[in-house]
Amino acid sequence: MTELEAVEKIRKIAASSRRAGVTLGIGDDCAILRPPRPDEDLLVTTDLLIENVHFRRDKHSPAALGRKALARGLSDIAAMGGRSWTCFVSLALAEWVTPRWIDKFYEGLLKLAGDTGTALAGGDLAKAERVACDIVVCGTAPRGKALRRDKARAGDAIYVSGELGGSALGLETGKGAAWTRHAYPAPRLRLGVFLREKLGAKAAMDLSDGLSIDLHRMAKASGLAASVDRPLPAFRGTTLDHVLHGGEDYELLFTVRPRTEVPEEFEGIPLTRIGTMRKGRAGEIEMFGLPLAPVGYDHFRTR
Amino acid sequence: MTELEAVEKIRKIAASSRRAGVTLGIGDDCAILRPPRPDEDLLVTTDLLIENVHFRRDKHSPAALGRKALARGLSDIAAMGGRSWTCFVSLALAEWVTPRWIDKFYEGLLKLAGDTGTALAGGDLAKAERVACDIVVCGTAPRGKALRRDKARAGDAIYVSGELGGSALGLETGKGAAWTRHAYPAPRLRLGVFLREKLGAKAAMDLSDGLSIDLHRMAKASGLAASVDRPLPAFRGTTLDHVLHGGEDYELLFTVRPRTEVPEEFEGIPLTRIGTMRKGRAGEIEMFGLPLAPVGYDHFRTR
Repeated sequence: MTELEAVEKIRKIAASSRRAGVTLGIGDDCAILRPPRPDEDLLVTTDLLIENVHFRRDKHSPAALGRKALARGLSDIAAMGGRSWTCFVSLALAEWVTPRWIDKFYEGLLKLAGDTGTALAGGDLAKAERVACDIVVCGTAPRGKALRRDKARAGDAIYVSGELGGSALGLETGKGAAWTRHAYPAPRLRLGVFLREKLGAKAAMDLSDGLSIDLHRMAKASGLAASVDRPLPAFRGTTLDHVLHGGEDYELLFTVRPRTEVPEEFEGIPLTRIGTMRKGRAGEIEMFGLPLAPVGYDHFRTR
Repeated sequence: MTELEAVEKIRKIAASSRRAGVTLGIGDDCAILRPPRPDEDLLVTTDLLIENVHFRRDKHSPAALGRKALARGLSDIAAMGGRSWTCFVSLALAEWVTPRWIDKFYEGLLKLAGDTGTALAGGDLAKAERVACDIVVCGTAPRGKALRRDKARAGDAIYVSGELGGSALGLETGKGAAWTRHAYPAPRLRLGVFLREKLGAKAAMDLSDGLSIDLHRMAKASGLAASVDRPLPAFRGTTLDHVLHGGEDYELLFTVRPRTEVPEEFEGIPLTRIGTMRKGRAGEIEMFGLPLAPVGYDHFRTR
């Protein structure tokens, strides 16, 4: 397969993905988009997914990978309380990749794109020794209203959505509901909008690298300390280590004013209060009275 | 170095790169940008740069690589007659990468970003077996006015900027002016705007994969054939093969109405008429009466 043929193939696959605002998609030097309305902000996120680092080809089906590449970007849009708009896929293909693998990769990606109203508007193709995918997702939020990790206030109640640690458990065991959780993460797009519009949340982020490091990041960005003093919502079968330090749950971590009434769940996803933001050394996390080190999953650390 | 430290390092390096319209840059889940004006289109391009495919670490300095990664994206903006606005850098780092290498990579990238008014607004970091960089560049063009490869018309005069084949020669010889041409390509941003605003050009693209394949792509997208019937502007020391099929010159290929007066050069860059667009089988290129196969540099083809 030549690059011309591969681009043509992807262009045909993506033709179903057109959306209002996309004047020109795949096939030219740039995509041409009509910008969001002036009363909206443009959100942009990029996420790498790399063979033998983020996935192994013998474990993940191409459809699951395409879906997950996009889900990671969508999760960042969700974390800002944004609405998804367009995506761009840069894909480096290794020699082992077959035309069928490419079909299935885009099939998985475009299924989730369709479900979330996201148009595939462009990207790049190259060959490489290992498969690597960089996904760019653009979204929108009302001007000045995007949720940010540096907007937590002292006294805010800290919440997480869903159950934690399932993805890390799935990565270990490779089976069951935990594996499904790992391989098919669900970006919490509607929840993000709900937090912003209905709960008046100002601070949120997605749990991509693990609660301990992500809460540390939010507290640090907001110039606050945090106390975790309530039971954590755990995925069935997980250990405390999975729940505290496991990556890739893609649930939302958010804060609201202490008296805000937060429902017990949103569309079936539990919302659980786990602690409180407080004045103190920026980024310092205490759990049941003891310091909690920001371990989490760090791409640069060898576990 | 942990990812936290690396992100902190890059955030500090990039702090100098803020620009109007960037509300929030590196460090949160998404960048927050104020969108372009409603009378402008948003241009988006993504480009992969991969170790052992697009570069070798023993040949390219990190500063040259950072610069080139951005130059490739800027060249796509130039090809649409756009103005550059923001960029996002996703960087996968191999084990051999040192903190100094990262410094120099961003130094080279940010120098060109500064020279072209492009803000570094975000990106991603990961580890990998080989270095890979995906660059996203966003730009703007007046609404509906971006140059497109599918807008050539029958009878249009075909032009190229600069001298061709130098990058391919430099890749072969690894030295001299040709190597400089290969390692430090110059995105033709001001030329792209000039073509759109002053020459009424409608069709353009950048010569990234070689004249024979890129002209084929433009003709095919426009539903036309093309004749090349004038001497080609060649970089000193190149062969016909370099000029016709060599990649990465990053000059502009463009068409204008046949009677348009095109200056001999723009800011010292020669503008040379090489042929004419004509009715015929879409994508068919004839050179001095003989069919010209779209060879060029194809990432999926083994030469």
